[in-house]
Amino acid sequence: MDKVRVGVLGATSYTGAELVRMLAFHPSVSIAYVSSQSYEGKALPSIFPALAGIKEINDNLLISPQEAVGRRSVDCVFSCLPHAASAELLVPVIEKGVKVVDLSADFRIRDINVYKKWYCDDKHPNHPAPHLIEKAVFGLPEHYRPQIAAASIIANPGCYVTSVLLPLLPLLKGGVSIDTIIADSKSGVSGAGRGLKQNTHFPEAHENFSAYSIGRKHRHTPEMEQELSLAAGKPVQMTFSPHLLPINRGILSTIYITANRTAAECADIVKKFYASEPFVRVREPSDLPQIANVVHTNYCDIAFTGGTDGLPVIAVSTLDNLVKGASGQALQNMNIMFGLPETAGLMR
Amino acid sequence: MDKVRVGVLGATSYTGAELVRMLAFHPSVSIAYVSSQSYEGKALPSIFPALAGIKEINDNLLISPQEAVGRRSVDCVFSCLPHAASAELLVPVIEKGVKVVDLSADFRIRDINVYKKWYCDDKHPNHPAPHLIEKAVFGLPEHYRPQIAAASIIANPGCYVTSVLLPLLPLLKGGVSIDTIIADSKSGVSGAGRGLKQNTHFPEAHENFSAYSIGRKHRHTPEMEQELSLAAGKPVQMTFSPHLLPINRGILSTIYITANRTAAECADIVKKFYASEPFVRVREPSDLPQIANVVHTNYCDIAFTGGTDGLPVIAVSTLDNLVKGASGQALQNMNIMFGLPETAGLMR
Amino acid sequence: MDKVRVGVLGATSYTGAELVRMLAFHPSVSIAYVSSQSYEGKALPSIFPALAGIKEINDNLLISPQEAVGRRSVDCVFSCLPHAASAELLVPVIEKGVKVVDLSADFRIRDINVYKKWYCDDKHPNHPAPHLIEKAVFGLPEHYRPQIAAASIIANPGCYVTSVLLPLLPLLKGGVSIDTIIADSKSGVSGAGRGLKQNTHFPEAHENFSAYSIGRKHRHTPEMEQELSLAAGKPVQMTFSPHLLPINRGILSTIYITANRTAAECADIVKKFYASEPFVRVREPSDLPQIANVVHTNYCDIAFTGGTDGLPVIAVSTLDNLVKGASGQALQNMNIMFGLPETAGLMR
Amino acid sequence: MDKVRVGVLGATSYTGAELVRMLAFHPSVSIAYVSSQSYEGKALPSIFPALAGIKEINDNLLISPQEAVGRRSVDCVFSCLPHAASAELLVPVIEKGVKVVDLSADFRIRDINVYKKWYCDDKHPNHPAPHLIEKAVFGLPEHYRPQIAAASIIANPGCYVTSVLLPLLPLLKGGVSIDTIIADSKSGVSGAGRGLKQNTHFPEAHENFSAYSIGRKHRHTPEMEQELSLAAGKPVQMTFSPHLLPINRGILSTIYITANRTAAECADIVKKFYASEPFVRVREPSDLPQIANVVHTNYCDIAFTGGTDGLPVIAVSTLDNLVKGASGQALQNMNIMFGLPETAGLMR
Repeated sequence: MDKVRVGVLGATSYTGAELVRMLAFHPSVSIAYVSSQSYEGKALPSIFPALAGIKEINDNLLISPQEAVGRRSVDCVFSCLPHAASAELLVPVIEKGVKVVDLSADFRIRDINVYKKWYCDDKHPNHPAPHLIEKAVFGLPEHYRPQIAAASIIANPGCYVTSVLLPLLPLLKGGVSIDTIIADSKSGVSGAGRGLKQNTHFPEAHENFSAYSIGRKHRHTPEMEQELSLAAGKPVQMTFSPHLLPINRGILSTIYITANRTAAECADIVKKFYASEPFVRVREPSDLPQIANVVHTNYCDIAFTGGTDGLPVIAVSTLDNLVKGASGQALQNMNIMFGLPETAGLMR
Repeated sequence: MDKVRVGVLGATSYTGAELVRMLAFHPSVSIAYVSSQSYEGKALPSIFPALAGIKEINDNLLISPQEAVGRRSVDCVFSCLPHAASAELLVPVIEKGVKVVDLSADFRIRDINVYKKWYCDDKHPNHPAPHLIEKAVFGLPEHYRPQIAAASIIANPGCYVTSVLLPLLPLLKGGVSIDTIIADSKSGVSGAGRGLKQNTHFPEAHENFSAYSIGRKHRHTPEMEQELSLAAGKPVQMTFSPHLLPINRGILSTIYITANRTAAECADIVKKFYASEPFVRVREPSDLPQIANVVHTNYCDIAFTGGTDGLPVIAVSTLDNLVKGASGQALQNMNIMFGLPETAGLMR
Repeated sequence: MDKVRVGVLGATSYTGAELVRMLAFHPSVSIAYVSSQSYEGKALPSIFPALAGIKEINDNLLISPQEAVGRRSVDCVFSCLPHAASAELLVPVIEKGVKVVDLSADFRIRDINVYKKWYCDDKHPNHPAPHLIEKAVFGLPEHYRPQIAAASIIANPGCYVTSVLLPLLPLLKGGVSIDTIIADSKSGVSGAGRGLKQNTHFPEAHENFSAYSIGRKHRHTPEMEQELSLAAGKPVQMTFSPHLLPINRGILSTIYITANRTAAECADIVKKFYASEPFVRVREPSDLPQIANVVHTNYCDIAFTGGTDGLPVIAVSTLDNLVKGASGQALQNMNIMFGLPETAGLMR
Repeated sequence: MDKVRVGVLGATSYTGAELVRMLAFHPSVSIAYVSSQSYEGKALPSIFPALAGIKEINDNLLISPQEAVGRRSVDCVFSCLPHAASAELLVPVIEKGVKVVDLSADFRIRDINVYKKWYCDDKHPNHPAPHLIEKAVFGLPEHYRPQIAAASIIANPGCYVTSVLLPLLPLLKGGVSIDTIIADSKSGVSGAGRGLKQNTHFPEAHENFSAYSIGRKHRHTPEMEQELSLAAGKPVQMTFSPHLLPINRGILSTIYITANRTAAECADIVKKFYASEPFVRVREPSDLPQIANVVHTNYCDIAFTGGTDGLPVIAVSTLDNLVKGASGQALQNMNIMFGLPETAGLMR
């Protein structure tokens, strides 16, 4: 079979570079182009020296996004661009019939008004391509596999979102009634991206820990609530509290739910749901998920505990924000779209 | 005024060494002895080289606990020993009329059956001194100052406990009705002590993050519930979830409460309650507490946010587990007991 | 072609677990057994939960070393055991005609008296198999490839050693005259192994940095001097100063040499020497090696600078102590011994 | 005695904030003003929330440098500004007869041509006040105490510089003949300042380690060579190699010297030289200096080892770059200038 020819927009972001590295070692992929607005004409290893020496990466100089979207000999385009910029550039690609995986939030939110409320501002007052939203499939393979296989546009889920949905969706789909949901999530600093900010300056993030955007302020909230509501068959509201961990990679979410089941029953439902999934591991309460067990892999580890004395059941889930939370999941979606083995390029 | 002559049991634990360092620079204290079972006869700086060169510390060789409790010329004894061992050694000290500050859990729990359930085992089937429990005062100065001033036995609160009680007690005392309490707490590794364990071996704790003892399993739970119940005037149950942060010092607790007040109203009540307190800083939601702002100080920083759309109010609190969470608070208690300025030896 | 059937002794050390993970994803390898004295009968993922879900690893319960060395259907055995224990167990394996890669120091030192001086003590007064030393090949593929291809015993080099030899050997072999060598090396904590020690307890290693075993005290010294002397054709003595970095993985060596060449000339010689090597990258002085560029890979990055004003030339080299410094290099050696592509299982 | 009234220029740099914190708790100091170009009108705790609640700091709003240098009722001004800007603003202060401690490099280099070579560029082609250079005293108290006591301008030494000079100067002054000097230094990230750069972005500095400006490129080189040459009575050249450690604070220098003395003799000379110094601790080779032993203190720890088999003697020294390497040493200098106890405000 011919290799899938892929292009990557926004290749110099952390998710972009991670994706390019994985693509370079994928047995059924050839890299058609890597693109970057800021570093046009340079080689990716001049920005990420770790990537030096990998032939397929060294040979591809970064091209401008404008040139990239004009390229014809490509089967799949990944966008690691920020929202708004992403959908804008993807429109001509999609119109050419090329399949796309968008790692930005642009195609995740089905309700245009919700999108506008959370993502639009004076500079970007509108969604760049509202007519394409309904064609997009939410790229969570464990829950949308058939739709992904048939899709031309994948909205790759947010990193926090994946860590919260994977433990909860099987419960809601399995008829568990959940009253309140509180997700206390902690993320490594790479989740904040490569752009420089005072709070991610080493001496301020190191030996520190803090909450941010808590109290219904983080943009991943509507995405979680959308998918939880779809699974529950009714509107779901939740509390989402992100925190900044002084580590490079990884998210761990501690999720408190008041449900009509015990922790063991929840674990059982979720274990059955994911029984044949290659990238979800349901663990025992005696072996709680730890970030170190999933970094640099596409696994999401999950466990359930608590729930005694009438107190909430507690789900703990963890994944690598750059892999299962972004580029690994994007690759998993591509594998499904192109009929490749789902784990291709993802086991190491 | 004469200096307060103090002795320290368990001086080679992390809390012990931190306490000795603070005592050495306290203007109204002289160190009568430092004691350690394992390192008898050695100088403290041979175990903690950072303490070298401080005359008062160099001159005091570590004596055995047995010798220590026999010493007469001492006004106050701090115990940094583990529970059970602590009360056992403190009994003869207390009987001599010497004031004690116990950093272990032995005198924190008022109900002997609750103590037995959480702390006793085959090796230590009973509390070593049940008759002394009712004489002990819970050493949270912001809430028990007059009692501390008159006390001869101080039960210094646990580190997690202090971070959870300080934001919540003023609400309960102020008549706020709180239905559910979930404390998602994160602690630096020094909180686990100086003893070697696989999960605190550097390569396993670093670049990692995990929950432990969640689901009503951590020993600080009954201590929190006791004080919350006293303040509420009725039994309070709560969820307490500790996590291990890959940093040396500091605790941050994110606490979710369903209360009949807004976050702003809660902040207002707490701000008024602590208006003249030297070591509690109530911050704005735009300036959330961060561990880096309190390490190496005796401050506890608190803020309130959330509570919109019918969702829980969120309290965030942070402190240094070795200072306000242990040795600093112990020193603050000593200052109160001996009529010294409450901030003496604690500002830096 | 049939898969190479491999066994791993000492599979529960850090190097062992890293090796097993790499072997599980190697396209031409099947794991015959994994062995551990302490964890016999358990599954490897019960000790390293990160490895859960990988079929080949889950299916292999840990067997005792005694059982392991009796196994017949195996083509290659890796030993990740400590010195002395390693050679002792490998003797019967070697006698059966099975090829071995020994990650311990047992077969690295050619002069038995040097070995005794650095490695023997009252408990292990002699080398367990002195007659086999001369059959062993020093497993540095870039310098012993033909010998490795024909070898039955590989002495896999030490982690520090590899970082020091790779930049220096081509100079000495190229006729550069070097008068003095000072290697100031810094290693992440995994290099100290999985055993618990006070100086690798998280709160003591984190936010810390220190030298250890400096002044001709570290066991990697004789191994470096042996290979440098062989390349120089005369005895070479050097200064080797290891330091403990507060990171998990990676070594960076800053090496000062007084040589009769400029830094640029040295870089040129080394670049030519390694021109077709897949795992050595010679970098420009403007792009100095950094640990983050090599961790989790089998690369060694090297650059040369300094040498102006009559001052020493400076070589900087870096590698991952668990990969090119141990298990990755061991796998590279196995690939060569069995005629497999040298990069098989090593690119990711 | 009246309190010393001090002003701080550049109070929002890391060294500035650390200095202000120390000044606030100094028993004989009152803060006259804190100044910042970028944050004029704000309170320091709004930039450094850790400083909230300290009355003397809260009450002082940041004033502009222009307003600051016009203030009359001040006894001593500290400048934490960058070079060039620092001397420029200090000129009018000095002319008013106010004593100054300059933490920049402006008054450290005695030879104007050396200063120009290392510090001047198109934007700042000249030293702002060459006529004042000869009035300045190099602020290393252990070596210039009498001159500091009489000085009106203190050139506070660089952080790396202090770590290299303290172990070497007593040797040169004691007649030891040193042929070559190589200082391999490692610094925490706060040494790079508060300004944002890609290499100090958390995900790029964390779990990383690298050399920078090695090969005679770092600006601290001429300052070291100047003082070493003065002590040796002849020109001294040296190799200085700085590295970036993934920690917040602390410098450790491993210094290789070829000298006509053993390590023990060197240690002896240095121990005698510093016998009555409050802030230098000479340690045994069995108890090598570690960064964790000096952070947050004004100590410099030193030890000597190596020197066997004709190899170089090795000095290891460590200090906190923000304390003995900057603000603590500045305060020590102020104490000497104003006849205060030298340790005032510096023990904790």
